[in-house]
Amino acid sequence: MKRKMLMTPGPSPVPAFLRESLAKEIIHHRTEEFRQILTRVHQGLQSLLLTKNPVVLLSSSGTGAMEAAVSNLFSRKDKVIVISGGKFGQRWAEISKNFSLELVEMKIDWGSAPDPKELETIFSKNNDAKAVLTTLCETSTGTVYDIENLTKTAKKYNAITVVDAISGLGQDELLTDKWGVDVVVGGSQKGLMLPPGLSFLSINEKAKKMIENSDLPKYYFSLKKALAKYQDNDTPYTPAVNLIVALDAALEEINKEDIKERWQRFKKLAEGVHLAAKALGFSLLSSRPSSSLTAINVPEEIKSSQLIKFLRREYGLSIAGGQDQLKDRIVRIAHMGWIDRPDLITCFSYFEAGLKNFGYQFQTGISLTALEEVFYGR
Amino acid sequence: MKRKMLMTPGPSPVPAFLRESLAKEIIHHRTEEFRQILTRVHQGLQSLLLTKNPVVLLSSSGTGAMEAAVSNLFSRKDKVIVISGGKFGQRWAEISKNFSLELVEMKIDWGSAPDPKELETIFSKNNDAKAVLTTLCETSTGTVYDIENLTKTAKKYNAITVVDAISGLGQDELLTDKWGVDVVVGGSQKGLMLPPGLSFLSINEKAKKMIENSDLPKYYFSLKKALAKYQDNDTPYTPAVNLIVALDAALEEINKEDIKERWQRFKKLAEGVHLAAKALGFSLLSSRPSSSLTAINVPEEIKSSQLIKFLRREYGLSIAGGQDQLKDRIVRIAHMGWIDRPDLITCFSYFEAGLKNFGYQFQTGISLTALEEVFYGR
Repeated sequence: MKRKMLMTPGPSPVPAFLRESLAKEIIHHRTEEFRQILTRVHQGLQSLLLTKNPVVLLSSSGTGAMEAAVSNLFSRKDKVIVISGGKFGQRWAEISKNFSLELVEMKIDWGSAPDPKELETIFSKNNDAKAVLTTLCETSTGTVYDIENLTKTAKKYNAITVVDAISGLGQDELLTDKWGVDVVVGGSQKGLMLPPGLSFLSINEKAKKMIENSDLPKYYFSLKKALAKYQDNDTPYTPAVNLIVALDAALEEINKEDIKERWQRFKKLAEGVHLAAKALGFSLLSSRPSSSLTAINVPEEIKSSQLIKFLRREYGLSIAGGQDQLKDRIVRIAHMGWIDRPDLITCFSYFEAGLKNFGYQFQTGISLTALEEVFYGR
Repeated sequence: MKRKMLMTPGPSPVPAFLRESLAKEIIHHRTEEFRQILTRVHQGLQSLLLTKNPVVLLSSSGTGAMEAAVSNLFSRKDKVIVISGGKFGQRWAEISKNFSLELVEMKIDWGSAPDPKELETIFSKNNDAKAVLTTLCETSTGTVYDIENLTKTAKKYNAITVVDAISGLGQDELLTDKWGVDVVVGGSQKGLMLPPGLSFLSINEKAKKMIENSDLPKYYFSLKKALAKYQDNDTPYTPAVNLIVALDAALEEINKEDIKERWQRFKKLAEGVHLAAKALGFSLLSSRPSSSLTAINVPEEIKSSQLIKFLRREYGLSIAGGQDQLKDRIVRIAHMGWIDRPDLITCFSYFEAGLKNFGYQFQTGISLTALEEVFYGR
């Protein structure tokens, strides 16, 4: 018998009450019953995103919604600025290229956060740019970006800000309307505690106008159609019914917690992980660490992919490694959605056991002490 | 307390053993465990589709996979022939238009099936057409198309055949490789007995070559990437993990039944419904009825949308009405996936009760007798 534990930044754990929701008898999507669910889901997403604008659902994983943003907001040869400081910034760049946009890439070191002033410099040389495409939490590095000030900068140049908040939403501070973020992209499999397969976008008035004028080809991801159906609490095509039913239950639970208290709670989880890592003698990859996951540098003598395999095999613990140039250099531990203090305590006890196996020297239990001190006081 | 009964052609009922699968603890998609599941799912889909070619999965509803076929197989200004005899033939036309293809529409009456000779005439005038895009079972009319001979015709003109088998797969005869069908599109929420949110395409060598040369923009639906990942039993983006886990269980169950016996079984269910409808004095809409659902003409004095609402309100029974010009003229009853003889018996008992309520005259029980005679003998 081996217990399993999922501490990866997506999919993240699905709690029992939502797994029960997923298993409910399926209902037809063109019924009053489903429309009521969809109405509540729309409102619940608005609450979570702190927006009064429509939040339309798509049946796809998060990348599908990122593509929807690009193919619906822009027209051929439009210029966009993409902030590229990890795998998911790169994804914005790839999608923009595939749709024949003129791409200005603001490349930053993996693990660092974009400086709004640097963005301003880029805008000053590209004042015809229609948008900046960026990320709330860059999942590949565990870095949270300063969306508030990046958005301010874009506004100076009359450009919209499109934020991939797929992994950050619910943990990292995001005040969509207050900050004036034009489009926010989210997905089901991170903070929302559900399996992958559902994504969504909040769309403000300025973005709506751009959608009306876009000439890029699209069909399944047409936001014009999605917005039209949204008004009747309906969807253009057969949606992922059981995920939406479960999302209704997830949002009900999430929105019980005050959003600011929620952000504080996750910030504290992150702090615990930071101090636990430091107690073990490790540093963080990120200069601006996210509240959704932590990327920890591991010493060169330990190959993180080997350590991760060992933890999975021996203890059933799944944590993530590094991607591309960060392969074998970091581990990434999620603290999003359903993950809470007991999970992190357990995770670090396994992590310590794994480190011992690889001959790494440290005082047994030191990371658990650090977590306890942050979570429950000295 | 009101029992519910879903007899619509998608979503169709999800049996308890699959709802349990959907509720399983979520696993990470980049693990050996998931790769093994994906390997079995790929093989299971190949068995069901009777093909040796790859069947790649996409996390979207069926329309997403239809778009993927168009945006990946063709290039700007390519000419395609679309057979349009209902809502889903129209969908092929809409997608093709949205992606700037040159569209030749073969329009046929809703409820009729395309004549392969007529297709030949169209090809003879358009011998530069790259493909015919058509439907196995046109869900809006309950009509099954002669894919075998339509494919033969296309082959004469060196064109590929792309078949939307979303609602027909598993009930209506389809011999992908034997008939030489180049691309087959399917979805999770019909014969496969799952919620919507997963789609797939089988892709033969000829189609693969076209995919390599396509210049239309795409990202999330890139079949080139999906095919590359397929070889390692992997997916390009986070897939709908729990739907794939449940699909594994669904395919195991489905593939226990000999596919030819399965087709026979559904043909018999359809026959039962045909005779039940006739016993009530109704005719069928379709001249070539599908084994997946039946569209029944209802007399003008009964508005089918009213009847359907009544059945849902009074008995919890969901059946479908007509779309567009068929609104209020037909009802559509599904016999796909998990639906079997007892469901049809129950459905017609409710249906009779509904007809009575609308003042329609008939001998009580006559449709049940007809069903019994077909299912269990005179």
